[in-house]
Amino acid sequence: MEYAKEIVTEEQKKGEEEEQVVTPWEVASKGKIDYDKLIVEFGCQRLDQSLLDRVFKLTNRQPHVFLRRNVFFAHRDFNEILDAYERGEKFYLYTGRGPSSEALHLGHLVPFMFTKYLQDAFKVPLVIQLTDDEKCMWKNLSVEESERLARENAKDIIACGFDVSRTFIFSDFDYVGGAFYKNMVKVAKCVTYNKVHGIFGFTGEDHIGKVFFPAVQAVPSFPSSFPHLFPGQDKLRCLVPCAIDQDPYFRMTRDVAPRLGYSKPALIESLFFPALQGETGKMSASDANSAIYVTDSYKDIQTKVNRYAFSGGRESVEKHRELGANLEVDIPFKYLSFFLDDDEELEHIREEYGSGRMLTGDIKGRLVEVLSELVERHRAARALVTDEMVDAFMAVRPLPNMFK
Amino acid sequence: MEYAKEIVTEEQKKGEEEEQVVTPWEVASKGKIDYDKLIVEFGCQRLDQSLLDRVFKLTNRQPHVFLRRNVFFAHRDFNEILDAYERGEKFYLYTGRGPSSEALHLGHLVPFMFTKYLQDAFKVPLVIQLTDDEKCMWKNLSVEESERLARENAKDIIACGFDVSRTFIFSDFDYVGGAFYKNMVKVAKCVTYNKVHGIFGFTGEDHIGKVFFPAVQAVPSFPSSFPHLFPGQDKLRCLVPCAIDQDPYFRMTRDVAPRLGYSKPALIESLFFPALQGETGKMSASDANSAIYVTDSYKDIQTKVNRYAFSGGRESVEKHRELGANLEVDIPFKYLSFFLDDDEELEHIREEYGSGRMLTGDIKGRLVEVLSELVERHRAARALVTDEMVDAFMAVRPLPNMFK
Repeated sequence: MEYAKEIVTEEQKKGEEEEQVVTPWEVASKGKIDYDKLIVEFGCQRLDQSLLDRVFKLTNRQPHVFLRRNVFFAHRDFNEILDAYERGEKFYLYTGRGPSSEALHLGHLVPFMFTKYLQDAFKVPLVIQLTDDEKCMWKNLSVEESERLARENAKDIIACGFDVSRTFIFSDFDYVGGAFYKNMVKVAKCVTYNKVHGIFGFTGEDHIGKVFFPAVQAVPSFPSSFPHLFPGQDKLRCLVPCAIDQDPYFRMTRDVAPRLGYSKPALIESLFFPALQGETGKMSASDANSAIYVTDSYKDIQTKVNRYAFSGGRESVEKHRELGANLEVDIPFKYLSFFLDDDEELEHIREEYGSGRMLTGDIKGRLVEVLSELVERHRAARALVTDEMVDAFMAVRPLPNMFK
Repeated sequence: MEYAKEIVTEEQKKGEEEEQVVTPWEVASKGKIDYDKLIVEFGCQRLDQSLLDRVFKLTNRQPHVFLRRNVFFAHRDFNEILDAYERGEKFYLYTGRGPSSEALHLGHLVPFMFTKYLQDAFKVPLVIQLTDDEKCMWKNLSVEESERLARENAKDIIACGFDVSRTFIFSDFDYVGGAFYKNMVKVAKCVTYNKVHGIFGFTGEDHIGKVFFPAVQAVPSFPSSFPHLFPGQDKLRCLVPCAIDQDPYFRMTRDVAPRLGYSKPALIESLFFPALQGETGKMSASDANSAIYVTDSYKDIQTKVNRYAFSGGRESVEKHRELGANLEVDIPFKYLSFFLDDDEELEHIREEYGSGRMLTGDIKGRLVEVLSELVERHRAARALVTDEMVDAFMAVRPLPNMFK
């Protein structure tokens, strides 16, 4: 699993026929991603206001900023999860990360911040899959390096504030086997090579590890893969918060589930987190200036935002005062809409900056404050995460109070 | 892994272009299997008399009947295993079984009888892989049924007399994970879909479990897959006794090994055990009359041998006395050459029966005696195998005296 991926622009993909390509490993587009088109193509549904209202009612708290701002904008069967929850039935959360880099950037935090909110709001257990096997296979990392990165990333994930009494973090290299492997085989039996060629675009030159991997990402959707957590609870529904590029995995999983007598996982899916250079720009692990990392200093953040954040402001102050900023392409405004909690302040900025009364320097200054605070908070929390805590989250153990 | 497989005759394979097809799942031939051709095609080597002489010298005992009669007739690097053994270096044995049926037939016993001899003669550890995952995927058995069959088959294997202080039996559904899974991923990274298409004939309509499975059968060849047995002994060589149809798996494994910094497994490979109906006949789990099972009674064996064992005897006693039996096609003689220990008696039978002095009824009578005794001995041994013994063989544990 990988939340924020390389968004390849037209320049990088010359000769491509498709307007946009979204797979779990590649997001490429000739312009801005057309999310409406994705929803139609993938066959998922818009997350509408009525669902948000239900979340508000059921959890007795303001829906998360990522819901209010439509960062999580699509779903599959989320309504059924809410129906069941309303009837007093529980569910569990499943998300994950492909540990391909040492330090996370802000895009990587998005699904974890949101998942923590869901865990707190619904009081449900959570499994987090670290796909060290995937990264070993795709990024050609050694097994040892993938495992090391998985553990480092686990620290960042724990720093997001998950509740150890409700959260099981596992790495595939550690945990695959037994009930989990049995489910992998069951899923694999239902999926032909032609099918994964169709869904994921694998070709004959791809190695057999890649061809098989979709089964590995599928099975945390099934409670029987975690006999230490959900014994005898085979009907427990699973909700997967993820970016929409992971949809193909779960389309496949949902297709297979009924044939195995399992429930389909429900999904709640987000937009991609944009690169500093703009929504058609490339957010690349190899270009440190395309993203804000949780390890960046205040000064790093200031420099990156001021120098690289694509601005919707106009070329001169006069022009800007006259036309106002183009909020559609303005990265500082987009980043604030992800990370500025205060709805009123964001609305104020939208008006002031959109009308030209606020200048690019002002909004960038505010963004630097917001991001620095976020990153500083994360860094302080991560500094407190010990190896013992990682072991505790990753221990294969029952969670007796996970629904309380 | 599967030793004895369905040998499909011309009738069943009309329209096939190939003279013979040998894959780990199918052995088809228009006539008798051409083993010389297989050796050339696969690229392995004949097991010659000089190697047998070395085995005699190194082990200080008569080579096993399956060596003396050329049942195990081909190898890869077996000479290197002997070189190393001569220098005082150790190796370990790896064989396996795909648990697709409740009761084993005699063909299934062949590799285990031979492996027991190797273990005793060389005093080396042995790992036995029960590929319950393979049978679940190929035979469409449920996970539970495959696991049950694996345990039942483990009892028959233990009844062959393996030494619990040197033998680790494992089922994939139980044991896959950790170090073993890491090696699976390492192997899978080195093998493309096109490669398994070329080696095993998988097509796009095959499911991804099949496509991935060769990695599962490959990794017991590497000592690092068994950290509880061989910690820090990554250079320990592995010798795989198997029927020659398993060669494709290990060709692939040997191809991959150096890229992972591992030693190539050595192989010692046998002929196929023929069906009662003859060497071009079909030995099928669905046709109980094509094989002698270890559960057959004396009467069953008598009936099967007398009624179904393909005879090289002539149509009339007169003709038989005149021409002698055709030993090339005679199943009773072939079965005796597998299971009659006494070289002198076999030579005597070859002369008497081949010259027509001994009649079909006589040789069949002797075969019934030999097989009944073998089956009775197996049954008695199996009756003594308790669940606790199965647990003991399958426990993930160190084997401190495995080389003594």
